[in-house]
Amino acid sequence: MANSRFEYVKQFERENFLLPQTHIVIRVDGKGFHKFSEHYHFDKPNDVRALNVMNTAARAMVLQFPDVLLAYGDSDEYLFLLRRSCDLFERREMKLVSTFASFMSVHYVMAWNAEFPEKPVESSRLPTFDARAVVYPNSQTVRDYFSWRQVDCHINNLYNTSFWNLILKAGMTGQQAEQALMGTLASDKNEILFKQCGVNYNNEPDMFKKGTVIVREYEAWTGEGEERELTTRQKQRAEKARRKAKVSIYHADIIKDEFWNVRPWLLE
Amino acid sequence: MANSRFEYVKQFERENFLLPQTHIVIRVDGKGFHKFSEHYHFDKPNDVRALNVMNTAARAMVLQFPDVLLAYGDSDEYLFLLRRSCDLFERREMKLVSTFASFMSVHYVMAWNAEFPEKPVESSRLPTFDARAVVYPNSQTVRDYFSWRQVDCHINNLYNTSFWNLILKAGMTGQQAEQALMGTLASDKNEILFKQCGVNYNNEPDMFKKGTVIVREYEAWTGEGEERELTTRQKQRAEKARRKAKVSIYHADIIKDEFWNVRPWLLE
Amino acid sequence: MANSRFEYVKQFERENFLLPQTHIVIRVDGKGFHKFSEHYHFDKPNDVRALNVMNTAARAMVLQFPDVLLAYGDSDEYLFLLRRSCDLFERREMKLVSTFASFMSVHYVMAWNAEFPEKPVESSRLPTFDARAVVYPNSQTVRDYFSWRQVDCHINNLYNTSFWNLILKAGMTGQQAEQALMGTLASDKNEILFKQCGVNYNNEPDMFKKGTVIVREYEAWTGEGEERELTTRQKQRAEKARRKAKVSIYHADIIKDEFWNVRPWLLE
Amino acid sequence: MANSRFEYVKQFERENFLLPQTHIVIRVDGKGFHKFSEHYHFDKPNDVRALNVMNTAARAMVLQFPDVLLAYGDSDEYLFLLRRSCDLFERREMKLVSTFASFMSVHYVMAWNAEFPEKPVESSRLPTFDARAVVYPNSQTVRDYFSWRQVDCHINNLYNTSFWNLILKAGMTGQQAEQALMGTLASDKNEILFKQCGVNYNNEPDMFKKGTVIVREYEAWTGEGEERELTTRQKQRAEKARRKAKVSIYHADIIKDEFWNVRPWLLE
Repeated sequence: MANSRFEYVKQFERENFLLPQTHIVIRVDGKGFHKFSEHYHFDKPNDVRALNVMNTAARAMVLQFPDVLLAYGDSDEYLFLLRRSCDLFERREMKLVSTFASFMSVHYVMAWNAEFPEKPVESSRLPTFDARAVVYPNSQTVRDYFSWRQVDCHINNLYNTSFWNLILKAGMTGQQAEQALMGTLASDKNEILFKQCGVNYNNEPDMFKKGTVIVREYEAWTGEGEERELTTRQKQRAEKARRKAKVSIYHADIIKDEFWNVRPWLLE
Repeated sequence: MANSRFEYVKQFERENFLLPQTHIVIRVDGKGFHKFSEHYHFDKPNDVRALNVMNTAARAMVLQFPDVLLAYGDSDEYLFLLRRSCDLFERREMKLVSTFASFMSVHYVMAWNAEFPEKPVESSRLPTFDARAVVYPNSQTVRDYFSWRQVDCHINNLYNTSFWNLILKAGMTGQQAEQALMGTLASDKNEILFKQCGVNYNNEPDMFKKGTVIVREYEAWTGEGEERELTTRQKQRAEKARRKAKVSIYHADIIKDEFWNVRPWLLE
Repeated sequence: MANSRFEYVKQFERENFLLPQTHIVIRVDGKGFHKFSEHYHFDKPNDVRALNVMNTAARAMVLQFPDVLLAYGDSDEYLFLLRRSCDLFERREMKLVSTFASFMSVHYVMAWNAEFPEKPVESSRLPTFDARAVVYPNSQTVRDYFSWRQVDCHINNLYNTSFWNLILKAGMTGQQAEQALMGTLASDKNEILFKQCGVNYNNEPDMFKKGTVIVREYEAWTGEGEERELTTRQKQRAEKARRKAKVSIYHADIIKDEFWNVRPWLLE
Repeated sequence: MANSRFEYVKQFERENFLLPQTHIVIRVDGKGFHKFSEHYHFDKPNDVRALNVMNTAARAMVLQFPDVLLAYGDSDEYLFLLRRSCDLFERREMKLVSTFASFMSVHYVMAWNAEFPEKPVESSRLPTFDARAVVYPNSQTVRDYFSWRQVDCHINNLYNTSFWNLILKAGMTGQQAEQALMGTLASDKNEILFKQCGVNYNNEPDMFKKGTVIVREYEAWTGEGEERELTTRQKQRAEKARRKAKVSIYHADIIKDEFWNVRPWLLE
């Protein structure tokens, strides 16, 4: 039976090949994680074990895709930075975002069930993620994107820490806490935390304040050179080096230069 | 701390809004399911329980997204037809494909673990899916797309059924079976199956030969009218009707007119 | 000398192939025609000869591109409707819009210099056009697009006719005329024109009120059938028929059904 | 008369905003210039006056669009390099390519009629151009794109010079000349030219061998800094500096570093 009569329908497919020699960042975001966190009774303001599940899933992603050089996450979101000459799925946007969303979701389920054997995920409230890909043409814009997310992590965490401590330690209602924080600056929140709740924000865990960084660490980086000038054998060797590279987890500042300066391969 | 200095990085995001008033089909494909089927020892040529897992996951998708009117699947792939005036995620391509890939994967894990409690999915070999979205401007092209997949199902299944029966019933090696089928037409394969393996292909289960159709069935369809002319209240009523509609599973012919003629809402 | 070292730069090219089986409309818009009309002293509110230049240029476009079935224009803009199965430049968006902008501009220069030998176009104020392509998936949306432009033509012309007659016939200043028309409905403007300026809007030329329609007229239309089912010879015959078709100019209503009903080839 | 009923058709418009902070190159190509050159009897292999028309038109483009820093052309094509932070038409692709194609065409007509008053352009054979936009993420890729075109110019010109001199000076037919050049290297062609035609290729005009470079020259370049950090006033000053910058024409090597090193503003 000939199928050729219908094959013309393939002409309707469209594909977006992400611009070569740009830095691809794939960002996954939890879908409806506010309700998810209520359903599974997350600790407030931060649930350490739930954050560990995110970090475990994200680490599995980095191990799965050697083209990922760096991941940064906080709350229910994670960014994955692909190396500039990455040719994964020929840089096809739909393949990249759907595959990352799929793997992240399944890794999350596995990590959750391992961390919380007493409350495995239920069909009625599943952890799922959407994903988007953004390309950045140069180092500065990549760094500013990661900086933006880390500043955002800080702003959100300071607010949430203040809000929940006013409730849990200062005995306020949600509405009162909201009122108390309205219009306050960062310094005001620090003071409110210290004076009204007895909490020194500086002593809060770095994972809450800075988020989590997962990075492919090379022992001896000598530079990859221009991808298109490598022989097939050199490419395979570079791929193997990426697979073998150690994957480390930090809760570090990625806004300042130092983090990037000692890891030149990230933005090469 | 002001985050505005970095916010400009959002300007680099690009979004593809799928053309209004076209039929969106989202197709999910299992990633590396050949190895997956070997790892979990699928029956050959068809593993009924594994197909049931796919169908259960796909049915959960139809229930989850009321904009899906029809799903068709076979092997490790499934197509989801969204209604023409669907505005899910504002028709944003990346949101649609990443969300469908994510939900399909997690539903599959849940369905698998329910079906195979003796061999739950393992971290070293996870079921994942990629997804793509294609838009079709009119009824004919939608129908031809679904016909293309059903013909493909038939061609593949006839081949696989012949191949595996030559091995399992006629005692051939894989190489011999491949040789025996080289250059054969459908009629030849039917005869080989009947004479050499004692199998009448017509008696094979419809799920293998035709794949699986999951459809939203309306009791009393009166037409939705032009979406943009509906009041908010009418839209909510239509949405509610979609949510309440019965979801049925068939192994039916979707190439001929009949299936579509009795369900005018599919291509309206 | 080998050029291959640099050829990789072609990989950066991106192309948007417009969705098959949709109606492509290419719209060209004069750039800075307000200043253009002042520079060349157009009559107000309508300069018949300048409109003729537009129409002559647009007619040359229709003759140049047999895939254009219909053109509609008013003021400094023109829409060109391509037949649904058109494969001009493989439906590549950039080719289409740049080519249409280029031809329209040069045809305009030629038509202008023929119409106004006493004031040929000058380098310091050239007539140029930009262009955009929009695809419409079905007949209704195409018709609504053309209706939108014709209604717009009417609204603008009624305002301009009132404004300029208040100045030229009722002796108002520009500011006074603007004031007099502020907040008026169509019926008010008709009355102002009649009572204060002695102008019966109904008697204004149709070219001003309705714009201009240029259409490829087929003597004996029998339907083209599905493009993809035509043989090469049938395609050539159809192409030849398009080239030979009479090209007519009207100032007709294209909002009502009649215009389209008697020309089924436009939306086939 | 309300027009709002039809305005929804604007939702079908799609726009591609070219990625920020990338180098936009717009390339215009003459349409059917082989026939054009025959119709107007161009000298072979190079028509100096016709090349001058191209260069005059391209220079007018550079003067018209202060965002253009560099133009390079040969034969019937021209590349225009826009500055990296250019925001012309909000970087909308269709606006850019259609506008450049339109202006180039009309400038060409004006330049042609000025250069060839004895044979002005005729309606039956008009000079038109298509245009495409390509974005390059970094300096190296921009330079390689321009290098690619200049090498191509050299290859084509050496071939054409050899081909036509074999005909005009060595008395060959077109077929014989083609035969004589088949499989020859650059060095062979140089020798053929010298021995059989008495032509020393090195003495050919640079305009033929290297094409034409039009560049915005700044007297005292001090760097523009990051665009997004400039005040409105600083932006206006920079814009004014671009408008006032001298526009020079060369027939220079743009493959080697020197050209670019002394003009740091091109790739900043």
